[in-house]
Amino acid sequence: MTLIIREAIKTDMPCVYQLIKALARFEKEPEAVQITVNDLKDKGFGESPAFKCFVAEVNKKVEGIALVYPRYSTWKGVVLHLEDLIVSQNMRGLGIGTALLDKVIVYGKQQGAKRISWEVLDWNDPAIGFYKQKGACIMDDWKLVQLDEQGIKNYISKLN
Amino acid sequence: MTLIIREAIKTDMPCVYQLIKALARFEKEPEAVQITVNDLKDKGFGESPAFKCFVAEVNKKVEGIALVYPRYSTWKGVVLHLEDLIVSQNMRGLGIGTALLDKVIVYGKQQGAKRISWEVLDWNDPAIGFYKQKGACIMDDWKLVQLDEQGIKNYISKLN
Repeated sequence: MTLIIREAIKTDMPCVYQLIKALARFEKEPEAVQITVNDLKDKGFGESPAFKCFVAEVNKKVEGIALVYPRYSTWKGVVLHLEDLIVSQNMRGLGIGTALLDKVIVYGKQQGAKRISWEVLDWNDPAIGFYKQKGACIMDDWKLVQLDEQGIKNYISKLN
Repeated sequence: MTLIIREAIKTDMPCVYQLIKALARFEKEPEAVQITVNDLKDKGFGESPAFKCFVAEVNKKVEGIALVYPRYSTWKGVVLHLEDLIVSQNMRGLGIGTALLDKVIVYGKQQGAKRISWEVLDWNDPAIGFYKQKGACIMDDWKLVQLDEQGIKNYISKLN
């Protein structure tokens, strides 16, 4: 197996998109993906990219991705967020996720990130075990809060 | 009471910093704030600011802040993250938090955000109640994961 971890280029985005869709199915929200391949091409490249994507290429095929962007912590300063770490279902257990995470952590350190954060579903025990083994902390006392697109509309309609 | 919600300017940053410190004390992590007033001035302004800050000015004194930045969701696209919503302890219950949140939601909509997210401590019932009343969802099945600065160092030391 020839494994290469490298920065994604625009022509990787169709493969990246397929992995994002596969993760949404795994996370039981197959309809949740509203972006398109072109959105990834538009937002991930150019002068002010919204994210940076790394890909894992196995025998010249993209089999995994790690997608990150900076955040700002008012406690720590500039931090890095790992939005997605995805490996093709039939390629798990071969060290591809570890190789991608290694790349993310090294990149975060290079960028001066004081923390690297991500999110995980509480029933995804293999992922949680993997992250703990890597030294990450599961922050049990923090909850995510979201106002979705409809919620934003409802909120604004009540303001007027 | 004269309440004005406006974008923060550099000279607000000492007051913003004091509110960040006060929140860290409230959240039982008084030593967690590693940034400085100058970090806020450096990172929040200029060509590529790491965040945008709104302040609530009551009788010409800064009594609250909302600090936001964009994130990228691989499901929804560009989203907005509310890092901090803080109101001085002795000024709570007067509608300042609502006025700040209103501003954030309107700003998010203007920016085309498909979602607005934030995080809350699970024991902070007044905040959770406030957010639910505003239409936000508490995402009980997601966990935050963090690798802190020492964790990053440990991780990298094992790579070599």
